[in-house]
Formats: sequence, structure tokens, C-alpha cells
Amino acid sequence: MSYTIFEDGHISSPTDFRATGVSCGLKGGGKQRDLALVYSLKPCRVAAMFTSSLTKAAPVFLDQAILSRNRETMRAVLINAGQANAGTGQAGLADAVECAKLVADELEVQRDAVLVMSTGIIGVPLPMHRMRDGIKRAVSELDSGGGRRAAVAILTNDSKPKERVFRVQLREGRRITLAGMAKGTRMIHPRLGTLLCLVTTDLAIEQRLLARALQQSVERSFNRISIDGDQSPNDTVLVMANGAADGPPISDATSWEYGVWQEALDALLADLSQQIVRDAAGSGKIIQVIVRNAANEEAARRIAERVVTSASLRAAIARSEPNWGALLAAVGASGVELRPELLELRIGNISVLQEGTPRPYDEQVLRQLFNNPEIECIIDLHQGPAMITMWTCTWHDD
Amino acid sequence: MSYTIFEDGHISSPTDFRATGVSCGLKGGGKQRDLALVYSLKPCRVAAMFTSSLTKAAPVFLDQAILSRNRETMRAVLINAGQANAGTGQAGLADAVECAKLVADELEVQRDAVLVMSTGIIGVPLPMHRMRDGIKRAVSELDSGGGRRAAVAILTNDSKPKERVFRVQLREGRRITLAGMAKGTRMIHPRLGTLLCLVTTDLAIEQRLLARALQQSVERSFNRISIDGDQSPNDTVLVMANGAADGPPISDATSWEYGVWQEALDALLADLSQQIVRDAAGSGKIIQVIVRNAANEEAARRIAERVVTSASLRAAIARSEPNWGALLAAVGASGVELRPELLELRIGNISVLQEGTPRPYDEQVLRQLFNNPEIECIIDLHQGPAMITMWTCTWHDD
Repeated sequence: MSYTIFEDGHISSPTDFRATGVSCGLKGGGKQRDLALVYSLKPCRVAAMFTSSLTKAAPVFLDQAILSRNRETMRAVLINAGQANAGTGQAGLADAVECAKLVADELEVQRDAVLVMSTGIIGVPLPMHRMRDGIKRAVSELDSGGGRRAAVAILTNDSKPKERVFRVQLREGRRITLAGMAKGTRMIHPRLGTLLCLVTTDLAIEQRLLARALQQSVERSFNRISIDGDQSPNDTVLVMANGAADGPPISDATSWEYGVWQEALDALLADLSQQIVRDAAGSGKIIQVIVRNAANEEAARRIAERVVTSASLRAAIARSEPNWGALLAAVGASGVELRPELLELRIGNISVLQEGTPRPYDEQVLRQLFNNPEIECIIDLHQGPAMITMWTCTWHDD
Repeated sequence: MSYTIFEDGHISSPTDFRATGVSCGLKGGGKQRDLALVYSLKPCRVAAMFTSSLTKAAPVFLDQAILSRNRETMRAVLINAGQANAGTGQAGLADAVECAKLVADELEVQRDAVLVMSTGIIGVPLPMHRMRDGIKRAVSELDSGGGRRAAVAILTNDSKPKERVFRVQLREGRRITLAGMAKGTRMIHPRLGTLLCLVTTDLAIEQRLLARALQQSVERSFNRISIDGDQSPNDTVLVMANGAADGPPISDATSWEYGVWQEALDALLADLSQQIVRDAAGSGKIIQVIVRNAANEEAARRIAERVVTSASLRAAIARSEPNWGALLAAVGASGVELRPELLELRIGNISVLQEGTPRPYDEQVLRQLFNNPEIECIIDLHQGPAMITMWTCTWHDD
């Protein structure tokens, strides 16, 4: 392994990052931390992926506008929890612009060097008088040890912060730090379902390679989990690389170092996405769906997505009902051309359908499998080489 | 109105239809009726629509094969409840074929004049010894007053039978009867979620016009309801027209009589689909989603489908939470190009978003609306002429 877990690390662990999380009365009774600020002493190359929602929140519009001009010299990101600043119209966009400007002015950096993210209730304006005060305090409290406070401040109805930090060995004597924090949970409280993820690193890397690596890692992590099939107007994954570690920038996607970086970023986002699905499950169950031997990747993905969003499969598993009819129905409803006479279905290590024909099994053993906190559903199409794994969870505790 | 409700009607009310429902030990403790047979003294023109599932059940494969040869002289349909005969492989197909043959032999009609439908548990073989006995008894008990027994026999976890019968006035002195029965419910017990619907009529009509009318009516009824976003391997809607009423066959889609027939069939299937969504709701709530002024029908449909399958909207409504963020998120996630600055959202008669900007409203009044047993969500895109209405319900009683 070319990377190791940095146990006490946090979002400000990479060289020359600072962070904090302050309480300014945005969420709950106003005593919780609810405004996070992450700042780099050096300009960062940045890459981001946003929700594909057509009702994007104001911070998403603003960030996309800023990133169209500046992807090379970013300095800070402000994240508030409590109000999503979505469904807030033109006034909401003005508020987001003002927040970014306030941060830039306080930090004495360029206007287009600050991004913003929001999570919380849709359709409610940001309480700007509180934001103005909170931003001033956040800037004054920035600290290289403040990452934990930031990870707490971005939560809404999450039960715990989600962080992971790796030390990555690029080549002898050259070590970088890669840090991530995220929030996201089930939509039990449907106004607070946003996924936000921020990654910081002191790696030096060209922006186009940063963007390329992020796209692959998101595809293999956040795009493999589904809590309730919904996406929010605010979903954002952002990576900031300030190049403060020694060494020349990575500039070749075929280099050994790029491969190591990609592997570490893949692992980091996979880890954070698993933390999200596990927190979302709460007292519910984790469902791992593996589609094997599909004709192609698109077919594998469509089947897996249909299965992880099946309300009836989730209901069967939540109730520990030892049946696999809902699984078969979901596979069939995927719209993928499959050969039913080759189809194999497995729950854990029990094969329930083989060559399209039911297999005898011990119902008691199957019932025990459905009672486990983690259930593995395997769909083997026996058609080709493609495979995918996705995760979901039962999110009603029933 | 050219049609009136026939209060005591049932599936065997149209001239020359017979029906029954017997108990042969397929479902529950074996004391409930679980095998329905509907028979026409005269050959029927038939049209059918089936699930688009790629893991179709054996009866669906068999019926499609029979209908490819014979759409003009159908005589009977056998419907069992308890086993879906889905996920049963080649043996399941042989069982379906044998059932159709047994019915044909007992009735002394042609082999390809009998269709079959099944609903119940997936992956379990039909208990053929019980079916053989049940089919004999069903044939012997066929009766013009047996429709109610048939409507009961096709149920699984439905709480009540779903029937509707119309008297349709085609022109002075020419009256036909149009009858329908259906089953379908939420997938609380996910093995029993099938939608089955049978329509009988003594109208004389050309087969191609029967098929055309059915397609339109299904599009406007069953395709407008969504209980849990899933479909089963067994879903079937079948219409049988035996022409026993007076008059020449309808042969012109532009005729006044075809229009009356289409209107009555639209109303019949809309009525049955509403009965299904209401039974599925149980103690939950009905959600009516109206998309207005969309650029085109496809856009309207995609938005409505995304909204009625939104887990977070359903959760918000189930909990009577007076928020509309989940509605906005679902509209945005539809993938339809919309103009957010024109978007209007209404809950009942309260406008919560207008021209993309939140409107002030009385939270108490909105909370009362969310407490109602039926909630109307209106999405007005202010973009074009297209409109659609869809229905769903909260199906966890939480």
C-alpha cells in the first residue's frame, strides 16, 4: 500500500491548510457549530463535481461561475449548515455572493478565490446578520488544528462527523497528505439530505489531472451509494490542492505517481461514502448489491441502480422476510436486455436461482441471512465481463 | 354522460359472460377463494398490455405467445392468487401451459382460446394437483352471477375487491355493458405487488380498435399511478369483447360510437386505478401530483414520475412536515430542462414558490394541508401547453 491512515488527521492536516467551525445560530438552538471555513495559505488548484439537479441551489450556481474563471488560485471555502440557500431565487444568489465577498475581504484575498457551500432547509433565506458576524469570527479562529471543528460544523442530521486522512508515499522522501470530510445522511428529515464533501491535499498537480482523478473517484464512490434515490439541489464534491508538499506538479496521467494519487483518492472517497451509508443506516441494515458478468458496464450499472432503489427489496430486508422475489422483480424492471435462462441470484452464499430456475434452500438459513445487519445480494447474468458493486441501506427503522 | 354506473354489476354482467371464484388451497390457510375463471359463451376479440419487466412470469410469456396467434376467438381466462409462477424457469412455463390446456379441455374449447394470469409469491411452483382439482370445480361452477366471487379470488394482500361496471349508451336503443375487476396494492409484502386487471364487454368492435382504445386508457389510468415505483413480472391488463350486444362492430376510430367507447373505457380504468391507489394507501395519504404548463408531454410526464417516486417527498407527507423542499428537489432531479426563474410550486391552494422565489405563507395553514388525507402538489412550469396528473400514496403508515 502506498498510503496509510493518519489517525488523528483532519481537513487541515495537509501542509499550509487552516480550518475552523464556529457557532453562529444557523441550526438548532444556536449552540452547535454551524459555519465551517477552510483556508489555504497558498493558492490551490481545484476541481469540483456538482449535483445534476435542475433546481440547483444558489451556492452551486455561484461556485460554477467562479470555477469557470478560476481553477488555479483558490484560497478558501465557506460551508454553512442550517439553510440550504436553495429555492431562494435571485435574493439567495445575492446572499451567496455577499458571503464569498465577506470571506475574501476578511482574508484579504481575491473575490474569485472563495467558494461557498450550504446545506439545510430549502426555501429559507440565509440569516445574513448572523453570517456576517460568523464569518468574521471564523476567519479570526482559523487554525491548523481546527479541522475537527469544521467537520462537526457542516453536519445537519448526521449522527457523527465523517473524516478520513491518508499519508501518501509518492516516491522515496516525497510524502503528501490527503484529507477529506463529508456530510450526508438519509432523508428522514427530507430537507437535510445534501451530500457535501471537501478534500484537501498538499500535492502539486496540474488542474486537468486533478479534475480527471476526481471524476474517476466520485464515479467509484459517491456514485455507488444510494440512500433514497434522491439528490439534493446542493450536492457538491470539491478537492483543493495547494502544492505545499515538496516536488514538481504531477503532469502526466500515465506516471507512476499519478497512479498512486488516483488510488489514494479512490480509497479516500470510497471510505467517506461508506461512512455516509453507514451513518444513514443507523439501526437499519446495509445492503451490498453486486452485479456480475453483465454484457457491459452500462448494463451492470442500470441493474445495480434499479436494485438499490427498489422500495420493495428494501422493505423485504427491513422486515427480514426471507424472499427474493423483490430482487428478481427489480432486476427485471431495470430495462436491461438479459437472458433469463442464464440468470443466477444469490443472497450471501445461498444460491436461490440458477439458470433461471429456483434452487432448493434452507428457509431458516436464508431467514438468518436476512436478519444480519449487512446483506449481500449477488446478481450474476452469465453474459459478459462487466461488474459493479453498489450500496444502499434500509432507512426506515421498521 | 353516455355511461352510467351499474351498481350491482360485476365482471360477468356483460351479456354471455360467466365467472366464478373457487377455493383450492393456493393462498392463506386454503379457505379463501383463490382461483378465478371468466368465460364467454361467444368468441371474444381481445387486447392486452403486459409488464415491461425483463423477468416476465410464465403466464405472461404464454399469453403473449397465444395472442400472437389468436386475438379474435378467445373464450376464457384463468387467474390464480397465491403463486406468481415467476422465477420458476422452464418448469413454470410447462405448468402454465398445462393450466390453459386443462381449462380448454374442461370447457371443450380450443387450446389457444384460454389465457392465464397469476399473482402471488415469486419463485414457488404452482401446486398443480390443487390447480387440476380447482380448475374442474371452477368450470362446473361458472355462473352469470359469479363475478363477485371472481373479484375476490384474484386478491392477495389487497384489503378489498376492486370492481366497476358501466352501462354505456351507444345510440338510441343500443346499450352495452362494460365491466372491470382488478387487484393490486402496495408492496408492503413485496412478493404480492402484482397489478392484474380484466375487462369484459359485450360490445362488438374490431380487434385493432380494441387494442387502440386499451392502449390509450392504460396510458391515462394505470400509467398515472405509482405505489412504490416498482413493477412486477406479472402485471397484465386484458380486455375481452364478445360482441353479444346488438349492432355491427365498431370499425371506425373517428366514429361517434368509438369516441363513446373510449370515454367509457378511460373512465373505467381510471376508476379501477384509483381504487388500487386508495386501497394501497390504507391509513396513509393520497398524493395527487399535477404538472402544468410544461413545454411538452414528455417533460410533464418525466417531472410527474420523478415526484411521485420521491421517497423524501413521501416521507415528508407521511410525517405531515409542512415543507416543500423535497418537492423542489424532486422537480430538479427529473432531468427535465426547466426555467427555474419561472417555476411555481403550490401545495393545495397555497403558493409556496412563484417565479422561482419563495412566497410568504402561514405555516399553520400549510401544516393543516399536510395533515389532510389527500394532498395536492402542483408544479407549474409556465413554459408551454402540456399537463399531466399522477397519483401516489404514502405506503408506510408512519
